[in-house]
Amino acid sequence: MASLKSRLEHSVTPAALRSYLAEFLSTFFFVFAAVGSAMASRKMTPDPAMVYPSSLVASAIATAFSLSVAVYVAINISGGHVNPAVTFGMAVGGHITIPMTIFYWISQMLGSVIACGLLKAFTVSQSVPVHGIPSEMTGFGASVLEGVMTFALVYTVYAAGDPRRGAFGTIGPLVIGLIAGANVLASGPFTGGSMNPAHSFGAAFVGGTFKNQAAYWIGPLLGAALASIVYDNVVFPSQSPEDSVRGVTDGIVV
Amino acid sequence: MASLKSRLEHSVTPAALRSYLAEFLSTFFFVFAAVGSAMASRKMTPDPAMVYPSSLVASAIATAFSLSVAVYVAINISGGHVNPAVTFGMAVGGHITIPMTIFYWISQMLGSVIACGLLKAFTVSQSVPVHGIPSEMTGFGASVLEGVMTFALVYTVYAAGDPRRGAFGTIGPLVIGLIAGANVLASGPFTGGSMNPAHSFGAAFVGGTFKNQAAYWIGPLLGAALASIVYDNVVFPSQSPEDSVRGVTDGIVV
Amino acid sequence: MASLKSRLEHSVTPAALRSYLAEFLSTFFFVFAAVGSAMASRKMTPDPAMVYPSSLVASAIATAFSLSVAVYVAINISGGHVNPAVTFGMAVGGHITIPMTIFYWISQMLGSVIACGLLKAFTVSQSVPVHGIPSEMTGFGASVLEGVMTFALVYTVYAAGDPRRGAFGTIGPLVIGLIAGANVLASGPFTGGSMNPAHSFGAAFVGGTFKNQAAYWIGPLLGAALASIVYDNVVFPSQSPEDSVRGVTDGIVV
Amino acid sequence: MASLKSRLEHSVTPAALRSYLAEFLSTFFFVFAAVGSAMASRKMTPDPAMVYPSSLVASAIATAFSLSVAVYVAINISGGHVNPAVTFGMAVGGHITIPMTIFYWISQMLGSVIACGLLKAFTVSQSVPVHGIPSEMTGFGASVLEGVMTFALVYTVYAAGDPRRGAFGTIGPLVIGLIAGANVLASGPFTGGSMNPAHSFGAAFVGGTFKNQAAYWIGPLLGAALASIVYDNVVFPSQSPEDSVRGVTDGIVV
Repeated sequence: MASLKSRLEHSVTPAALRSYLAEFLSTFFFVFAAVGSAMASRKMTPDPAMVYPSSLVASAIATAFSLSVAVYVAINISGGHVNPAVTFGMAVGGHITIPMTIFYWISQMLGSVIACGLLKAFTVSQSVPVHGIPSEMTGFGASVLEGVMTFALVYTVYAAGDPRRGAFGTIGPLVIGLIAGANVLASGPFTGGSMNPAHSFGAAFVGGTFKNQAAYWIGPLLGAALASIVYDNVVFPSQSPEDSVRGVTDGIVV
Repeated sequence: MASLKSRLEHSVTPAALRSYLAEFLSTFFFVFAAVGSAMASRKMTPDPAMVYPSSLVASAIATAFSLSVAVYVAINISGGHVNPAVTFGMAVGGHITIPMTIFYWISQMLGSVIACGLLKAFTVSQSVPVHGIPSEMTGFGASVLEGVMTFALVYTVYAAGDPRRGAFGTIGPLVIGLIAGANVLASGPFTGGSMNPAHSFGAAFVGGTFKNQAAYWIGPLLGAALASIVYDNVVFPSQSPEDSVRGVTDGIVV
Repeated sequence: MASLKSRLEHSVTPAALRSYLAEFLSTFFFVFAAVGSAMASRKMTPDPAMVYPSSLVASAIATAFSLSVAVYVAINISGGHVNPAVTFGMAVGGHITIPMTIFYWISQMLGSVIACGLLKAFTVSQSVPVHGIPSEMTGFGASVLEGVMTFALVYTVYAAGDPRRGAFGTIGPLVIGLIAGANVLASGPFTGGSMNPAHSFGAAFVGGTFKNQAAYWIGPLLGAALASIVYDNVVFPSQSPEDSVRGVTDGIVV
Repeated sequence: MASLKSRLEHSVTPAALRSYLAEFLSTFFFVFAAVGSAMASRKMTPDPAMVYPSSLVASAIATAFSLSVAVYVAINISGGHVNPAVTFGMAVGGHITIPMTIFYWISQMLGSVIACGLLKAFTVSQSVPVHGIPSEMTGFGASVLEGVMTFALVYTVYAAGDPRRGAFGTIGPLVIGLIAGANVLASGPFTGGSMNPAHSFGAAFVGGTFKNQAAYWIGPLLGAALASIVYDNVVFPSQSPEDSVRGVTDGIVV
């Protein structure tokens, strides 16, 4: 167990700084595609008051494809979290220190805000869509659905990064994208299918309203923590401490 | 050949219990996305009396993506069946004992019921879509189509898990999802494209009608048994008993 | 160079018979999804006289997903051709004997006919869609487009099966499905995007019209032959005869 | 550092010529599917003045699928650039010589022009869609969006080809296609989502208008150069010169 001071020093090494840059870039790539696809679908819908299943398909595919890539390009630098809930789950499991968790969060939220800002600035006349809840649903219900979906996402992240699974790790970044895309299809018109507080924060920041924002933090963070606990302790407990190599100790995990 | 008593003891070891949990979670993830996507598409369709090909695409992609992930996260714990028909095919092939088959079925059906119940509870005012057959078709016809598609699915599961195929096993969980998604596209407006009795049971249980339920059990179970027999004995017979390593003997297959 | 008699004997060994069964099953799986998805989309289109881009997406995804799986499950038994044009390309390249080519063709066409017949029989009241050409196009133009797309498909089959490409072979079955799906998107309303004479033959046989059938044989066979010649002799010539291991000599390629 | 003369000689070896042919064919395959899918969607849209999100989905999937394949089949011959911006990024990073860069560009542009010309010739009565910018946007804004998306694409190309990433390289061609598809979904109605000057050039050449063409060169080339610099020097700097094996020195990279 390292002291606070050594932990802080540890979180500003060149390797750690590269991890933050990797998280920033990957979250930027992901949010650009996820938010951009929602803006593009809306612009292409003949009657703006209507939504169609094909808009849902566009969002889901953009989410799946871009998240797979975002995880892929960062995985051997920062672990490829691309999501404050995933980082929180890793912190709960003891795989990343608290100071580094904070820097990861800042990098992810910054990447999201800049992606949304850039889309708003250059598409002109288009507003950024903010995650919201239909009138018949409650904030609690939205939190539960987002929490359940984030549980599935973080559980998949754990499985994908488990070295005991051998060659299956090769397709790990793909399946992480797939579960996110599937959950967008399941929840689009209900909660928007965020599972990612950085995504929701960036859209809210640029879109100008933080209404319901809490639901997009509480649900995902609790779901992520629970997934971390269930995977590490119940479904696939480590036989020995050395089994766990998910820790991002010096930024290079290769 | 073990005695009944030893088989029963064998089916409640810690490793076996972890297998049941893995099947429960994976079936939950899969059914949540498959049923949720049908509810989401319906909510987004302007005229509820109409269905559009884009709803079919949404269901198919949700099925493909979530089944790939559900198989992936469970594959080295429980074998990643996620489907009573797959477990039945494995039992027919002698790769899993009868007591474990029963516990697998219970876990899968429970995961499906809870996923459907949770969706119904928190999306408010939405009903859970139950697999059904259009008026011009017969239950027998639906059984045959579901049986044929489950044959293709279980045959793919066998091929994906065959250790003689070397590195191709790495993408096995992906192709299992792909064949399910392709078959949903082929059968959506005819039978709904279930191929999975747990999926049909959970939706019927929460949706409140077991009409035509038999077609979603008889066809898939027969199709799965036939696929098991054809793969193991005709297309790719084992040269020696040791070739077959698909058995889930103590829950950990790694 | 074997004599005709030994070649014929060679083509009825147990391993060869298993290859034919594998081709039959894989072509059945593929055509069931490809033709079924076209029937399902049509049934779900509000005004049957209209077609929508979402029908095209449904067909393309069904084609991509099911072809990837069909190739995957057969690849280490029969080579996973699933297409008379692919088998013809392999024959032109000397990787399969003429008698075996004929048995492959028969197996593929039989799989396609039975898939189409089964869909027609059990969906009741639905007709099987036959590949056709819009009035403004010529049979020659359709042949060229189908030929160009089959060139891309067979070139991809060659690359995917080339042992000199190392670990990239693992995702070979996936990319073969992807190029077929992409080409369906490019050509759906022009030629239907067949690239597969067995698919076109089965649909025509059950659908009851062989109009324009020639275009779906001449273009693909010529495109396949050209791809075989270009890949083997120009782009990636073998340094030595042993380099080529694509031959299906005794049914088991593993 | 080789002399100009030796570099020129180096760029016309048989291996180099095979690289150009591989780039020509792969760019042809990619542009055929990307442009063809846009033409097919338009032909299938009931009211030609309207566009629907399902057209966007069709274009994005065609782009993702065909680019994955185009990269896959060329990767161990030419490196699988399939895009002048990628080749430019590689030149900036010193991984390919200037003379070879020029021959790559010519091969890519030729492949694109011929794919577009062939589609126009044989689909009769259909025009080739040219990349364009909606009236409310500026050429500068389109350049920035195209540049940002090409940055993500080329950054992914670098990550996919980095030998320090081990087994993840196996799915590299897939993720390169996925990021392109995701970006098409994010930008379709804004810039068309090109990220590829050869694609834009071929469509403009056959479509008959070079309006806004500059935006499809300036943005992508700058984005590619920046991605090359950031990846090689900041995010994942080489520990030693030998680490970098991305150079296409004699056409065969295997």
